[in-house]
Formats: sequence, C-alpha cells, structure tokens
Amino acid sequence: MLNNTLKPNFIACDSSLAAADLVLLGIPFDGTVSFRAGSRMGPNAIRSESAGLETYSPYQNSDLTQHAIHDLGDLELPYGNTGRALSIIEATVADLVGMSKKVLCTGGEHLITLPIIKALHAKHPGLHVIQFDAHADLRSDYLGVKLSHATVIRRVWEIVGDNKIWQFGIRSGTREEFAWSAEGHTIMEKFTADSVKKAASVIGDQPVYLTLDIDILDTSVVPGTGTPEPGGLQFNQLLQAIMELSQLNIVGADLVELAPQLDISGASTAVACKLLREIMLLMLSSKLTNQ
Amino acid sequence: MLNNTLKPNFIACDSSLAAADLVLLGIPFDGTVSFRAGSRMGPNAIRSESAGLETYSPYQNSDLTQHAIHDLGDLELPYGNTGRALSIIEATVADLVGMSKKVLCTGGEHLITLPIIKALHAKHPGLHVIQFDAHADLRSDYLGVKLSHATVIRRVWEIVGDNKIWQFGIRSGTREEFAWSAEGHTIMEKFTADSVKKAASVIGDQPVYLTLDIDILDTSVVPGTGTPEPGGLQFNQLLQAIMELSQLNIVGADLVELAPQLDISGASTAVACKLLREIMLLMLSSKLTNQ
Amino acid sequence: MLNNTLKPNFIACDSSLAAADLVLLGIPFDGTVSFRAGSRMGPNAIRSESAGLETYSPYQNSDLTQHAIHDLGDLELPYGNTGRALSIIEATVADLVGMSKKVLCTGGEHLITLPIIKALHAKHPGLHVIQFDAHADLRSDYLGVKLSHATVIRRVWEIVGDNKIWQFGIRSGTREEFAWSAEGHTIMEKFTADSVKKAASVIGDQPVYLTLDIDILDTSVVPGTGTPEPGGLQFNQLLQAIMELSQLNIVGADLVELAPQLDISGASTAVACKLLREIMLLMLSSKLTNQ
Amino acid sequence: MLNNTLKPNFIACDSSLAAADLVLLGIPFDGTVSFRAGSRMGPNAIRSESAGLETYSPYQNSDLTQHAIHDLGDLELPYGNTGRALSIIEATVADLVGMSKKVLCTGGEHLITLPIIKALHAKHPGLHVIQFDAHADLRSDYLGVKLSHATVIRRVWEIVGDNKIWQFGIRSGTREEFAWSAEGHTIMEKFTADSVKKAASVIGDQPVYLTLDIDILDTSVVPGTGTPEPGGLQFNQLLQAIMELSQLNIVGADLVELAPQLDISGASTAVACKLLREIMLLMLSSKLTNQ
Amino acid sequence: MLNNTLKPNFIACDSSLAAADLVLLGIPFDGTVSFRAGSRMGPNAIRSESAGLETYSPYQNSDLTQHAIHDLGDLELPYGNTGRALSIIEATVADLVGMSKKVLCTGGEHLITLPIIKALHAKHPGLHVIQFDAHADLRSDYLGVKLSHATVIRRVWEIVGDNKIWQFGIRSGTREEFAWSAEGHTIMEKFTADSVKKAASVIGDQPVYLTLDIDILDTSVVPGTGTPEPGGLQFNQLLQAIMELSQLNIVGADLVELAPQLDISGASTAVACKLLREIMLLMLSSKLTNQ
Amino acid sequence: MLNNTLKPNFIACDSSLAAADLVLLGIPFDGTVSFRAGSRMGPNAIRSESAGLETYSPYQNSDLTQHAIHDLGDLELPYGNTGRALSIIEATVADLVGMSKKVLCTGGEHLITLPIIKALHAKHPGLHVIQFDAHADLRSDYLGVKLSHATVIRRVWEIVGDNKIWQFGIRSGTREEFAWSAEGHTIMEKFTADSVKKAASVIGDQPVYLTLDIDILDTSVVPGTGTPEPGGLQFNQLLQAIMELSQLNIVGADLVELAPQLDISGASTAVACKLLREIMLLMLSSKLTNQ
Repeated sequence: MLNNTLKPNFIACDSSLAAADLVLLGIPFDGTVSFRAGSRMGPNAIRSESAGLETYSPYQNSDLTQHAIHDLGDLELPYGNTGRALSIIEATVADLVGMSKKVLCTGGEHLITLPIIKALHAKHPGLHVIQFDAHADLRSDYLGVKLSHATVIRRVWEIVGDNKIWQFGIRSGTREEFAWSAEGHTIMEKFTADSVKKAASVIGDQPVYLTLDIDILDTSVVPGTGTPEPGGLQFNQLLQAIMELSQLNIVGADLVELAPQLDISGASTAVACKLLREIMLLMLSSKLTNQ
Repeated sequence: MLNNTLKPNFIACDSSLAAADLVLLGIPFDGTVSFRAGSRMGPNAIRSESAGLETYSPYQNSDLTQHAIHDLGDLELPYGNTGRALSIIEATVADLVGMSKKVLCTGGEHLITLPIIKALHAKHPGLHVIQFDAHADLRSDYLGVKLSHATVIRRVWEIVGDNKIWQFGIRSGTREEFAWSAEGHTIMEKFTADSVKKAASVIGDQPVYLTLDIDILDTSVVPGTGTPEPGGLQFNQLLQAIMELSQLNIVGADLVELAPQLDISGASTAVACKLLREIMLLMLSSKLTNQ
Repeated sequence: MLNNTLKPNFIACDSSLAAADLVLLGIPFDGTVSFRAGSRMGPNAIRSESAGLETYSPYQNSDLTQHAIHDLGDLELPYGNTGRALSIIEATVADLVGMSKKVLCTGGEHLITLPIIKALHAKHPGLHVIQFDAHADLRSDYLGVKLSHATVIRRVWEIVGDNKIWQFGIRSGTREEFAWSAEGHTIMEKFTADSVKKAASVIGDQPVYLTLDIDILDTSVVPGTGTPEPGGLQFNQLLQAIMELSQLNIVGADLVELAPQLDISGASTAVACKLLREIMLLMLSSKLTNQ
Repeated sequence: MLNNTLKPNFIACDSSLAAADLVLLGIPFDGTVSFRAGSRMGPNAIRSESAGLETYSPYQNSDLTQHAIHDLGDLELPYGNTGRALSIIEATVADLVGMSKKVLCTGGEHLITLPIIKALHAKHPGLHVIQFDAHADLRSDYLGVKLSHATVIRRVWEIVGDNKIWQFGIRSGTREEFAWSAEGHTIMEKFTADSVKKAASVIGDQPVYLTLDIDILDTSVVPGTGTPEPGGLQFNQLLQAIMELSQLNIVGADLVELAPQLDISGASTAVACKLLREIMLLMLSSKLTNQ
Repeated sequence: MLNNTLKPNFIACDSSLAAADLVLLGIPFDGTVSFRAGSRMGPNAIRSESAGLETYSPYQNSDLTQHAIHDLGDLELPYGNTGRALSIIEATVADLVGMSKKVLCTGGEHLITLPIIKALHAKHPGLHVIQFDAHADLRSDYLGVKLSHATVIRRVWEIVGDNKIWQFGIRSGTREEFAWSAEGHTIMEKFTADSVKKAASVIGDQPVYLTLDIDILDTSVVPGTGTPEPGGLQFNQLLQAIMELSQLNIVGADLVELAPQLDISGASTAVACKLLREIMLLMLSSKLTNQ
Repeated sequence: MLNNTLKPNFIACDSSLAAADLVLLGIPFDGTVSFRAGSRMGPNAIRSESAGLETYSPYQNSDLTQHAIHDLGDLELPYGNTGRALSIIEATVADLVGMSKKVLCTGGEHLITLPIIKALHAKHPGLHVIQFDAHADLRSDYLGVKLSHATVIRRVWEIVGDNKIWQFGIRSGTREEFAWSAEGHTIMEKFTADSVKKAASVIGDQPVYLTLDIDILDTSVVPGTGTPEPGGLQFNQLLQAIMELSQLNIVGADLVELAPQLDISGASTAVACKLLREIMLLMLSSKLTNQ
C-alpha cells in the first residue's frame, strides 16, 4: 500500500525533471514589498490547494495528465539581501533554460520577474513581455531603492527596450509612471484588457514572457494580495484575455503577488491554481517550441 | 414580557408544522466531502444569520410573512455511516411528502440531494431535476466509493433517467463526465445559465426538483464553500435565472455546499439566506399545488 | 532624521485646518446598529490602510497632493446615549461649515448622516441628498426607536422634504418603505444606479450632499459591512455613477457602514479608501464653491 | 422520523417553562460598549456551540439531563435607546422571579447586570453580589454617561449598598475606581481570586447574585471579548473559585462580555459553554431554594 | 542551482524509506467527526509549518538531523466509506511494521488510532497504549455507530484488553464512560497527567503505543481542534509528561485531532510540530529496538 | 467642538517632543524575516489598540498621564535595502539620544535592535542588554546573511562584548548557538526567567537596554508573532520579571516581533500595549536619569 500516498506536488506535475517539458518553480520571495508582505507563502499554498483542482480544463478541452510537468519545489532564499536572492533566482532559471525547459514560476512578489527575464532574455534576445497587472510598476526608484516590486517593469524595460512590454489592466500608479509609458516606452491599456488579441497578432511567433500579477483581478476575486486595488477584472474576463494568447510562443511565465493568508477562505488561492492550470496547458500547446 | 423573546427559526418561518405549506429542513451532513468539509455548519449558520434579512422581496413584491412556513430544525445524523445517514434523510422527507408539504432542505453537502429525490420521486415519478452547480457531479464513482458528493447526480440519474436532469453553470469535472453527459444523459449548459427560460418552457407543468449547489456562484460571491471554483455566476445572474422558474411546479428544493466558517465575513451566508427567501417565495407562488 | 516619520493621517491629507479646503472627519459611532456592529472601527482602519493607496487618480487625472485637505482625526463619542452623540457630531460639523470648509465624514453607521445634514442644511436650505445604498432606510421607526440606522433617511426627509432625496441601488426594505417612497417622497432607482446622470442634470448647481452607504456595493466587493445585502453594484459601476456627479456642487459627503474587521483581507477597506480619494478629488474640482 | 430533529436550545435545556427550576435567557445587548462591540452575538453563539459540550460534569459528578432547565431564547431589544432596553430586561426577569425561577442570563455586555439585579433585589433585599471580572466597572460615569458597561457595578452599588459586592480578579480601572473601592464600598481582591472561600463563609445562606465577566480569564483563554485585559486567571483557577460557591444560595447569575466573533476558533465560546454548565449545576444543587 | 530547492517534507525528514528508522505518515481522515471536521488538514499543515521549527531540541539536547527519518506523505483515502479507509490505513502501517520501521502518524481524527494499533498489535501482542487526551473516547457506540472518534479507545480495548490502556488528562465524557473505566478496564488519571512516571515504571520494557490527542492541551494552547475542551494542560506540563516516557520502548505513535484552519494564527500547528519533534527524538533514542 | 477629536497617538503619549522625557518610536521593518513576515504592522496596531488600555497601572500604582511622553509616529523605511533601513533607524535614535530623551521603540522585527543599540552605545559605552526572547538569535549568519533577525544578538555582542548580554526565556536555537553562549559570551537562562532579580543586582546602576521579543511569551498568550515557539512564559510571569527591573537605569528599550494580523482577536496586540505601559512607567520611574 506504500505507493498509495500523495506526493505534495502541484496536481499532476509528477514528471521527472529530465522528462519534463515544463518546470514549475516556487519563488517565495517578498523582501521588497512596502505595504503588506505575505506573497512568500504563495508557492506553498498553491501547491497544497491544487488538490481541489480538476486536472481537466473544459475551456481548452485538455488535461494536465496528458503532459510532462515537473514540480521543482521552492527555492530557498535569504531575506534581507535582495541582490543575492535575485542572483539565485536567475541562476536557477538559467539552468532550466539551458535544459530547454519551459519555465513557470509562482511568486512571491513581482520583483522576481526581473531575474527570470534576465535568464530568458539571454537566450531569447527579442523577447516580448505581456504584463497583466493593476499597477504599472514603472517607477524609476521607490524610496531611493532601485530593486523593488514597484520598479520591476522599469528594470525589465532596461533589458528588453521600447515596444516590447505590453501592459494590460493598469489602474494604479503615479502621474509620472503613466506619463513615462505614454512617451512610448511601453504599450499600455488602462483599466481593461480588451486589446490582447491585437497585441498577440503583432507579436506573432516571437518569443513571449507572460507575467501575471494576480492583482489585475478585482479585489472581490482576489482579496488575498498585498496591495489590493479595487476596480479590476472579473475572473472570466482575465481567462478570456489569456485564451487570446493561445497562438503565441510563451517561453516562460510567472504568477505573482498572491498572499494566501490574507484570504483565509482559500478563494484567492483557488483562483491562482486555476489560472496556473490554464497557463500550463496554454504553454504546452504552443505550436512553437522553446528551442 | 416573556413572549418578547426570539425563537431561533429562519426568519418568519414560524408556522406550526400542521399549518405549513412549506417545511424548511436542515441536513448538516458532509461526510463524503473529499477536500474541505464544513457544510455541516450550513443550516445553523443560515438560521442564525437570517436575522439580518428582510422578509419582503422587492424582486417578487412578496413577503415571507404572508406565507405559512415551518422550520423543522436540523436532522441529527451519524457521521461515519453514510448509508444510515441517507436513510434517515429519506425517511424524514418521505414523511413530509406524505403530509403534502413542499420541502426545502439546507445542506450539508450535495449527496443529501439523493435521498431527498428518492423520497420525492416515489410520489412524482416524472420528476425533473434542475441543477445549478459548478461541478457536474456525474462521476461513476469517486476513489471507488459510489455514494459521494462527486457522484450524486449520476446516482440521481439512475433514478430519474435520461432527459430529466438540466445542468446549468457547470465549469468543472473530468473529461469523462462531460463526455457522458454529451451522450445524451443530461442536458448541460456549460459555464453559464442563459437557457433556463427555454428549459422551463420544455418542462411546463411537470413536477420539478431544484438543487442549488451554491458554488455555481463565483468564488468572489461565495468564498464559503468546500471546493471553490472560480469563473462562476454573479449573484444577479443567478437570481435572474431562478426567476425564470416562476411558472414551474417546484415540489422540492435544496441549497447545498455552503461552508459558512470558510467565509468569516458572513457574506456567503447572507447570499444563501437571500436565495432561500427568493426560492421560498417562488415555491409558494407556484400556480400548481404539490398534490 | 526626525521629520522622516509618517503622520497617521489619511494619505496626503496633511494640510493645516486653516489652509484646508476640505476636512476629513472620522465619526466612529455605531450605537443603533441592530445586527452586526463594528463600523465604529471604520475611520481608523481607513486612515491606516490609506498607506496602500496612490495619491494620483488615473480616472480623473488628478492628485490629492495638489489639494489642501486636513485630517481632523476621529470624534470621541459616548455610546449608550444616542442623542448626545448626535449633538456632538452636529456641533462639530457646524463649526466646520462656519469656517466654509467642505466636509467629508467617514462612519460609523448611517445615522451619523442625520446630524451632518442638519448642520449643512442650516446653511444650504435647498440641499439635495444623493444616497447610494442597498437599504432604503425609510422606516418610520425601528422597534419603536426613532433614531436608528434603519430610519435615518426618513429623518433626513423630515428636514429636506419631498423631491430632494435621490436614492440609488436600493434593494432591501420593508414593503412599507418602498410604498412610502413611491408616494412621491423620494426619487428611488431600485437595484441599479443607471439614472445618476439624469438626476445630476435636474439638480444642476443646487447644493448637494452625497451619502454613500458602502453596502450599495455587492457583498463580494465589500463583505466588510454590518448588514450584507447580496446583488449590489460592482466597483466600476459605482465609480462610474460617482463620476456622473462631477459637475455638481457637493458641499458635504459621507461614506458609512464599513465594518473593517468583518473583512480581514482588507479588501473592503481598500475599496473605501479608493472611493474616498475619488470623492475628495470630485469635491475639490467642483466648479462651484461652498460659500 | 420527524422527532429526530434537534431543537436549537442550549444542550439539555429542553424542559418546558412551567416545569423548569432554572431559566436560561439570552440578552444580546452591547449598546454602551466603548471599544469593540460584539457581545450581542454571545447568546446565540453559546447556544449553537453547546452542541459540542457533554451534559455530564466530571467535576461535580452531575448531569444537566437530571435537571429541569428551560431555554427561553433571546430578548429582542432596541439599540440606540439604552433606557428602554434595560426596562425590557428588568420586566422579563421580574416575570421569571415572580414565577420563582432561578435565572441565568447570557450577555451581552456587562450593563445588563443592572436591570437583572434590580428585578432580583426587589425580592431579595439583602442580596450579595459576587463579581468575577478584570475591570472594576466602578466609574461614576463614562464620558458623561451614567449607564455604561464601565459604570455598571457603581450603579449596582447604589442598589445593594456597602459590603455587599465582592470583586475578584480586578486588574484594570482608573486610579479613582480603586480608591473608591478602598474607601469601603466594595470588597475587592486584586489580580486573583484566592479569597472566594472566605467570602462564601461570610455570606453564608444569604441570597447571592453571581456576575461573571468572562474577561476575568486571561486573554489566552478568552481572546473573544471586547476589552481584552492580559494577566488574568487560567480556566482551572476560575473553575476552582466557582466551585467554592457550592454551598451558597445563588438566586441568579449571568455570564457577560463574550464576543464570539473575535475568536473565530470557537475556543472562547467553548469556555463560556463549559462555565455555564458548571454554574447551572451549581445553582441547581444549592441547598436552599429560591423561594 | 537546481538542488537549492526545498522538498516539502517535515523538516529534516529527508531520509530514503529504505534507510529510515522512523517513518512519518500523514492520515488525513476525519470522516466520523460529529462536531467540527477539519483534522484532515492536519498532516499537510504540519508539514508546511515545520519550516518554522529548529531541528535541534534544547530539551533533549538532540537533533533531528542526526537521525534517519522518512516522510512518506499523506494517504489518499475515500470519504464516506469508513471501513475501507481504515483498511487502507491498517495495510499501510502493516507494511511499515513488516519493514521493521517505527511509525509516527499524524491525523486526522482519533479513529485512525484503531487500524494503526491493529497493525502493531499483530506484531506486539502485549502492547500497552498510553493515551493523552481530553476525552475518554470509551463510548460503546455513538448514535448507533461503532466506529467513531468517540468510541475509538473502547475499540482499542477490545484488542489489547484490560490493564493495558493508560489514560491521562481526561476531563470530558459521559457518566457511563467514567464508570466503565472505573470498573477496571483502563487506568485513568482525570484532569492531569502527574502519574506518567509511575505508569512508565510499571510498563518497563514492554512495547508501547503512544496516542496523543492534541486536545489534552488547554484550549488556549490549541484552539485549533474539533472539540475544544477548556481546562487542559499547559504546553510545558505535557512536554514534561512526555519526557517521562524516555525509557520506554515506543514502537508506534500518533498525534491526532489538530484542525489547523480553526486557528489561523498557526500557533496550534506550531505546537503540534514541536511535539512531533520531541516525540521523534524520544522514539529514536529508545534503548530498545522495534524488532 | 473641534478639539473634541482624538489624536491617533499611543494612549496618553500626547506631550510635545520638546517637553517629553520619553519618546515612543515605531519602526515598521520586517525585511529579513525568514518565516512569516508581518511585524511591520506592529507599531500601527499597537497605537490603534491602545485605545482599549487604561492609563493607570494598578501594578505600579502609577499613571501615564503623570508623565511627559511623545509619540513620534512611525519611521518610513525602504524595503529591500536592509543597510539603508538600519542607517535611518540609527540616525533617528541618535538624534533622540542627543536630545537626552529616553527611547522606546516598537517593531518591527528583532534586527531593529541593532541600530538602536549602536546609537545608544555611542553614549553609554558600558551598556548592558537584557533580552527576553524565545530564540537565542546568536547565529553567526543566516543563509549567508549577516544582518538578520536570527543573528541580531550576535551582532549586538560584537558591539557590547562578553558579559553584557543577559538572555532570559530562550528555548529555541541551533546546537551551535547554545554552545557559543555557554562559552561565556552571554549569560543565558534557558526556558524561564527566574534569575532576573539576580541579574539586576549585578548590573546595579549601569545603563541598561531592554529588548523584549514578544515571543518569549507562550504561543497561547501571543499567537500573533512570526515564529511561534510553544512552551513560553505566561503573561504574569513576564510581568513579574519586568518588575524586577524597577531599580535599573533603563536608557532605552524595544518591544519587537508582534505580528498583529496573525492574531485577529487582537489579544496579542493587547498584550503588547499593556507591556508597553508597564515599561514606560518603569523607565520613567528609574531613579537615574539618561544623562
């Protein structure tokens, strides 16, 4: 009866690392968060609560059990030393990219996107970035700090450059952030995510990174996040927007800023789990490979 | 002053059993739930929190105080012996049916629907079943167990047969469940509940049982449920769908899977209370009697 | 470094009282609430949680830091003596009105609206009242008590008279309340708030008081309120309705019935904070002055 | 099967009113509470959660099922009108006293003790009062209000006079309260309750009222109370103190200030339930009758 | 960097199964619980929260990292079919016993102790059972059901017989349970656990099973349990009692009835984690082997 | 009436900075916490909840209103840059020390003690440190990071040297930490705090810094802390230990590691508030001045 026990992986992510096409990696870092921390608890909560999820998606008519996915567990990271934490993240993702794995990371705060993109950009120099988010995250610095969840997309822009970052659902930021974007540095759709299809057609088969800050969703859908921003998307609106990415070559993705303990009902975590299932299936059905 | 005290019934359900047209029965059973239990607390929470509800519905321009409703309290059920619990439920409902009462049950988990329908089907052999739910509940078995909240509608189908079960809002299940339904065993509308009016016109004046799994609602509306499934209906969408049933002969109904302690704000319970008020008024305004 | 510390004001409300155009006043009173108390905690929670809010509104392209707003703190009020508490509120608001300040109050329960309006009506005899609310609050009395959160708009009507009270989003009340309104005493839009623009055009440049009971929003958006009433507005629907007031002369306003501890996620409080920011900017951009 | 349902009484309190020796009465009033309200939810929570309690006490080797106890339900009280609420309480208790019932009330806030004692004192002019409490409650007034949970024992003293009030466990108050007590008005044991036995021997067979403010217990034992005061008794210390009352003629009692929703674990409510069981058994085993 | 990730085992339980002396097994079953379910969440919460625990015990001056312990994960069990769930548990433990492993199980409800003891008793016919618990669990049946968390020690007695079961801390039960124990069937210390040392000296080097129902602790220490029973032990009292077992030959043990979601602070789970560390170290330092 | 409003200071800390003998400073930093963050919310919660505290201490027969205390508010600190945050803290405290103020800081995590002591040690070279804590905090580094809440007392030792640090209540750490202390670097009492009086007599009138990690208290008393460690002191045990310091010259103090949102009952915060009141009164009654 000994093989009757459940492995604490994300549901159906039981492939070996060697055989996997996609690797799920937890990055429990929230060291630069200025308001309410807690997203460090995200990866573990997502893994645990995935037990309540079906492996089959009636939206895509596809099943996680048909794919080879490996759950690598969570990175062990030092708090209080942001630079070192980012280096560990970058090195780990670089290893996975070197093995030609697609990578899906669970945060953790939004700053983790920076080292992931660094590792991916080294392989995919023309990388596009699609950002679903309530916040622009385009500050030049935050209280004098350059590496922060509030500056992360500005830092990403320093890597990928103009016309590569597509921002959807943005409804919060400083006047300066909106103005800087409007100067042509990023392509931003405020408040909603209705133009995803158009973005996808522009991107075509160029490699894409998807960063999903879960606070793009309305606070009613995801109260469990560090900086709740009312007025966001409903779940089905976001799901539909994500489905528009089905023809893209998504070489990496993340889902960040879930702070599960802020929503003790577990609903926020359930939202994250379902989005991850759909993103996994999307990444694995991409017509283009990661090589 | 002694008659100044409040009886802890659901609000305005103060009729005697003998005089009542409708009986409210709490069934605090959640013994087969596989993920998060807690719906056993549903009936009691609903009764307590109904104190915050108005008796008057501006939607139907009708008032609970105009009707004779009896709150029978909660069944006392053994945990760990599913068969025996179901027998007690069935016998109790059969007694009420024998007294020509309409029956509205509060769960508890979805499996309680099976013995209720058994008791009602004995009197109404052509019974239709309208199911509002996120989950298909059509598994043949669940980990080898035939009687489970995940198999309950399959068991109901064994009683009522093909073309009698109308499923709305279904957005979760195995590939097999969706396929089995599509073979013609149930009439299923995936994701939404837009075709209720059409169903109602087909059913006409045949007797109907309404089973409402509260997780048909979005997790933002009802985080207090055992298996939260994002992407569901908004409250007003469900309310509108229920209003489409106003011409039907609803001989029994249930509201299941509220797990009140998972939503400590009380909002999920308030949703259940308001839905119950509307269903009560609907059942009591039905043009056809239960005889 | 001593000036490096944060003052616990609502964000950016750091003007002196003398220089301020708008004064924010907390009124932590919930002494007549019949179901679940707790709105007394509202003002303090709003102030604390405003730290997570941007000062800039992308909706109005305006910034709190451009305006002179003073946070006066919270009134200290006796519980158990409603009349005395109301007198203190009225006297304080009268002082502010005497200084030609616009006043924005955070509750607390809805009854606080009565003394505020008394103070404002003394200066603005033709005052209109725009009410966003789930509940009509038009009872003549509640369990024999005249001064109650369930009777407050009826009391307000005794001051302002017929055709001055505009009610939006009402979805709960007794049969008598709806009937009394329909006799012509108030202008009520049930369930929704689609006719705000029309109301605004009728009101024109007459002075207006805005009372916003946060339970006009759906329970999914604001579970943190004393009497949760499902079926309300989404955040963006309310925001749009408020934007329709931009041409009005709003001389005073309140936001009431937030019970922050009922929503430990903080999402309900975040909703209140964002609404307050938008209302402040709206009041300060009004073309007409308060004089 | 219809008699299989559970009545929502406090466990084993199923006697008729006529046959009962002891009556349990819920008084859900917290209208004068200055800090955190919520004790109005106490009576209902106690009743619900008593389902988890055994009827048998191994401490007293006695069983609730051996006694005739009636659960009268909860009083319906107006908030916002303290005087009227107190009148209803007093009249109800007076009726019960007139029927020669022993009375055990569940609060609600501590002010409810005042009208209960008024009703009892009319019959028992030499009534002693034993108070277990963290707070002295001896203020002359509170923010100018005479009737308050912070003044209640001062008001009781105005009825029963000097040398009748025995205070145990007091660890919070103003300097004035402690000084006033020390002038000889009440007999106070600060911090602990070690002298109960001695008090009991002084009181002998004179009639006694027991008022138990649950915050006498340490905040670790009862976090669910409105004004948590660290440094209190452990459960077993309080239980032992209560057992010292076994030879007294307790004609009435209350347990107040449980705010169940502040402790969502339910542990605070479980503490209240167990204390009530022990107090009931104690009152019913008293050698002297209530006549 | 790929080996930098954390495996989600209980801290330091990273041995292979083959090499392990002790095996940790999660049994997430709570199917017979009559009041509040939720202990099924225990094993997973314990594993996650063990990250906050040091591996070193200053009490025993010993470290988990010095030992070979395997975390087998959680059993997958059907709900709604108690007999089948118990069979799976028994078979799994029997396999481990067959491999000469010491077994430490985390519940789950107390009924899981029955199949574990069945498997161990087959190898150790003279097995003693030491029970730390608030409840006697000696009912003959519970609402007619023989297999229940309220009857489990009675069922265990049917296996091990008189004079083998040592009960400590018992403070709740029916009159019949206490009487039946007093007939000589079990050795019971009511309320406290002061006689453990004496029991240990009687048992000597006979094989012992330790079953620890976490509700032996006071509700202030472990609010997170299904049937909270005030008046229990403090943590240090229990720890001291456990230390008295250091010379015994403990061949198996369990820790049951932690319901982690009932204590969202995580303190209850931290208590369980620390007790498990101490029990592991105790079992592994036993002078006698399991063979 | 405008001066009727409450300033959101810690209760009775309304002196001007210039006139104050003692300054209360909030330091909401938790950037190096490895397990559960949240102590950044401590200072604000303490300030808010102090409204439920009496200003008078019956333990010391002294009243906060008799003293001049200034509440400076909270420092604004960058997250993600530990060095810079520590510099701001040190500079601020140095300014206060330069003004000859006694300083009492509320955390925040334990690392904040380091810059505070740096600033104080510059003025008081022979400074002793009394630490009440569950954790030794003596690691040389934590995951390679030198500045961490788990290494802070080791860093403090590098400033103050051997025989200056008195540790009480320590019950968690690595084997190495206990060994390093035993080499003579710190004076440690494991598990309890019974030797405080003796320490006080050794210290005499030398300047002392008091650092109080609230997790020295048992998890039942303070579940609201980041790394809950069962087996700690009861509140009254800690209070008694603190009272033993009454003759010392306490020139500065802190209370750290309260994570208020982890204990939504508010009891943990109430414990912190009461301890702060007693420490304030103790510091202000010290016979020796800070000059």
